[in-house]
Amino acid sequence: MNTNPLLSNTLSHWDGQVRRMTAVFDSFTDEEMYVQAAPGRNRIIYILGHMTAAHDMLLPLLGLGERKYPNLDEFFITHPDSPDTALPMPGELRSYWRDVNAAVSAAFREVPPAGWLERHTMVTPEEFEKEPHRNRFNVLLSRLSHISYHLGQLALVNK
Amino acid sequence: MNTNPLLSNTLSHWDGQVRRMTAVFDSFTDEEMYVQAAPGRNRIIYILGHMTAAHDMLLPLLGLGERKYPNLDEFFITHPDSPDTALPMPGELRSYWRDVNAAVSAAFREVPPAGWLERHTMVTPEEFEKEPHRNRFNVLLSRLSHISYHLGQLALVNK
Repeated sequence: MNTNPLLSNTLSHWDGQVRRMTAVFDSFTDEEMYVQAAPGRNRIIYILGHMTAAHDMLLPLLGLGERKYPNLDEFFITHPDSPDTALPMPGELRSYWRDVNAAVSAAFREVPPAGWLERHTMVTPEEFEKEPHRNRFNVLLSRLSHISYHLGQLALVNK
Repeated sequence: MNTNPLLSNTLSHWDGQVRRMTAVFDSFTDEEMYVQAAPGRNRIIYILGHMTAAHDMLLPLLGLGERKYPNLDEFFITHPDSPDTALPMPGELRSYWRDVNAAVSAAFREVPPAGWLERHTMVTPEEFEKEPHRNRFNVLLSRLSHISYHLGQLALVNK
């Protein structure tokens, strides 16, 4: 379906970055997931939940399907991390992370090259006419940057 | 020249991320540049020099020109940061950063869409035949991720 080589390159890069992030999460034990990325900053488990919610949101945002775990937002999007907040268990979140990414990666493959230039669902047709950069491909690039942003933070964790 | 919309989106995203990074560097005074991103980790000034060298390398790597500041590598690529190492001054590095990014961004615009799918200069024609993903566009995606990686780290600095 994705015969456009720039697009297939980008989708492969996405899968590679998700694998890299998964390897980083897997390198922490369930106990270590409660360590903060830096003093006073988000715990690793918060970053895992936050990334899972952000990728889950891609499904409705790109018009590719329904959210799988909308319940995560309350913990990982609406509220900042705080050491006192009880969060879903690491094992549960690790499994959501894999599940969401499998769904997202499969859904990406269903979008034909021209479909990536269409508007995302948070922009109206009127707005899109004036701002054609608010397309699905830009959402993809922006979520790619989001992965690396948190990868860089996790690299600072002192184990 | 870049009539391919996926490519123009990616190049705009590049410029946006460079602007974002520049704004972050500009948010630190010359004195604050010597603060570490996290305890025991790279100082901000090291990240500035490191990013500048990495972007400067894009010129020969993509076959777009000569390095402008090859002297940076000894400080910011070959050796890890150490609080005892004397580095070039912040003002000097800030000016190199702007200069390199202006050159890179202009050079990017000279590459036609099909040129992005050609091999980069560190891969031989024989290797490239087997591994066609080792093209210039993938270098671009990978350097885009590199920006966000360090943006995420700089967001953890306690000012």
